Amino acid sequence: MKNVYVASAGLAKFGRRDGSLFELALEAVTNMQSPELMEKVDAVYFGNMSGEKFTNISNLSSSIADHIGLSGLPALRVESGSSSGAGVFQAGFLAVASGCYERVLVLASEKMTHLSTADTTGILSEVIDPVERRHGCTMTALAAMVTRRYMHDHGLTPDDLALVAVKNHDNGLLNPYAHFQKKIDLETVRNSRLIATPLRLFDCSPISDGAAAMILTSKPANVRITGIGHGTEHVAVQFRNSLTSFEATHRAAAMAYKMSGRKPDQIDIAEVHDAFTSFEIIDTEDLGFFAPGQGFKALLNGVTKLDGELPVNPSGGLKARGHPVGVSGLAQVVELVWQLFGDAGRRQVHGVKIGLSQSIGGLASNNLVNILEVV
Amino acid sequence: MKNVYVASAGLAKFGRRDGSLFELALEAVTNMQSPELMEKVDAVYFGNMSGEKFTNISNLSSSIADHIGLSGLPALRVESGSSSGAGVFQAGFLAVASGCYERVLVLASEKMTHLSTADTTGILSEVIDPVERRHGCTMTALAAMVTRRYMHDHGLTPDDLALVAVKNHDNGLLNPYAHFQKKIDLETVRNSRLIATPLRLFDCSPISDGAAAMILTSKPANVRITGIGHGTEHVAVQFRNSLTSFEATHRAAAMAYKMSGRKPDQIDIAEVHDAFTSFEIIDTEDLGFFAPGQGFKALLNGVTKLDGELPVNPSGGLKARGHPVGVSGLAQVVELVWQLFGDAGRRQVHGVKIGLSQSIGGLASNNLVNILEVV
Repeated sequence: MKNVYVASAGLAKFGRRDGSLFELALEAVTNMQSPELMEKVDAVYFGNMSGEKFTNISNLSSSIADHIGLSGLPALRVESGSSSGAGVFQAGFLAVASGCYERVLVLASEKMTHLSTADTTGILSEVIDPVERRHGCTMTALAAMVTRRYMHDHGLTPDDLALVAVKNHDNGLLNPYAHFQKKIDLETVRNSRLIATPLRLFDCSPISDGAAAMILTSKPANVRITGIGHGTEHVAVQFRNSLTSFEATHRAAAMAYKMSGRKPDQIDIAEVHDAFTSFEIIDTEDLGFFAPGQGFKALLNGVTKLDGELPVNPSGGLKARGHPVGVSGLAQVVELVWQLFGDAGRRQVHGVKIGLSQSIGGLASNNLVNILEVV
Repeated sequence: MKNVYVASAGLAKFGRRDGSLFELALEAVTNMQSPELMEKVDAVYFGNMSGEKFTNISNLSSSIADHIGLSGLPALRVESGSSSGAGVFQAGFLAVASGCYERVLVLASEKMTHLSTADTTGILSEVIDPVERRHGCTMTALAAMVTRRYMHDHGLTPDDLALVAVKNHDNGLLNPYAHFQKKIDLETVRNSRLIATPLRLFDCSPISDGAAAMILTSKPANVRITGIGHGTEHVAVQFRNSLTSFEATHRAAAMAYKMSGRKPDQIDIAEVHDAFTSFEIIDTEDLGFFAPGQGFKALLNGVTKLDGELPVNPSGGLKARGHPVGVSGLAQVVELVWQLFGDAGRRQVHGVKIGLSQSIGGLASNNLVNILEVV
């Protein structure tokens, strides 16, 4: 397997955007540290979750190549639900690792905010097992059930959860690409409306537009991808062994740690899938950073803050950077690359050598983990 | 790059099927020559074009792994419009070629016939450039324009075109997995209704349900994948240099011939994308089998018949085997594998050593070429 490096990475500004899926993608490409490298790529890998549903356009990979001026090149779309951004990153990695392509553009884009929240929620709920959907499950309802079970088992309180949102908004405040650059406090979360008990509005990531871009290459560069991991789990939540731990993350993490030769205690910084505040806590346990039931205690102790021992979601996470569903998994890696390059501006964590990202597809049925290191 | 072999291949019966997308996929897996190999795969690659639109289920790769008993493994969906089956084949190829996975299941499934023809046509037309769509273009309308231009330039007649359908129905008659196992003659085509002048019903591939499955491995087996190629072209037809030749095929073919070290005259058998009868003729020219404007003369001379010098679409092609859009590109490779294994039953072409498949995404905006050889 060839070594694979990241040569450049960029984001479009996340938020409620006027531009199309394609314009956002072009903005992300243009915002890369070295946009001129785009002229030297051999192929385009495009990540997107439900673009056909959100925009009524299909064959998106051909159109994306067209819109960014790369028509002619191989262009392929990759999808794994809300982890599509991580899925396309790994597909691009494998394409370069194989030696077939020397340099590929990995790109993800999603446009969601032009639809009503009801329509978007309907489309997003199509990841849920049809039987559970028929019984009224939405993503938030299932996440609420997971959260209640964790509270029951481990003594987590709603205020503990709220601290995830407060921390991630603190980080997002330092990220010019974040959907929200707004400080919040415990009262903000406490006073926000209930979505599905115990999850309040500020426990949930927003619906966002956004795009991310990255150039992967077998030519040595500053950051190397040392591990990728991927795992799935029964789509129907009723068939799972645990509600408070995601088997698909365990599988993905085991594979990525094995490939990289790294262990959880060697990770300097992590971007994890905080679609809901409770998920960040569960993720940090599933990744082996903290023992089961101990993740929220680490949060309370400040371990996962920007100046803590293991900063988690320095970008602001899905909560504050925003969650354009098919993009988040790649945006996480962009944040790692910037942190490892020393290009993370006011939220730069010093001395970062090894970063990890973890992305969740569906209700944790299709999860991916990536490990990147300074060369 | 590691050598990649095909260890086993299977199809579900194509046609109007009652089963779900998932049941069809399981049928294809079960019908592989060595279904027991499924227990040894490291990952699942799933090809599908517009499953979200056709079935209102998303996160399809997780669900497909679940339904075939492989939940837990990495599972990723790949899409490139109507060439998704070829796209997923190449993604699986690269995953094994990289050395990351030793054995992967490549799978494609599509369920379309439960919708009305109007609904399906609407969904399929979403691959067309939005401006051209707004002016009334459907896939068939654009294909008709391409066909008329070819007629104007090269003197092709409607009866010549009809012979593509007659030949492919002759082949489909010998394929128990084909949607149509029905002999037709020139009169059948002549008497069928006009869809878009000059294309009649029998010039168009049908709407079908179907699935295909294949195991790719770096462990030596009888058939090796020696070349893959992929290219795109402007989605808007108005921006193209030619209507009667597809640039994306030229690019894909050049890449696949270069990788394999083969030339067009070394190919023993080919499966090409005959979504419309005229496309088969154009494809055989774009692939370098015949000079521009000469493809239909080769057809008239019987060169591309099952007992001709270069059998084209021995399976019956999209026309007779059927066209479940996200599956056809992989079903083509299944036919090559069977022919190369000597497992093609009554339509076995003798002495086949090198086979080529060519698949078209959208209106020829995302095309792929694969070359497979007996080891």
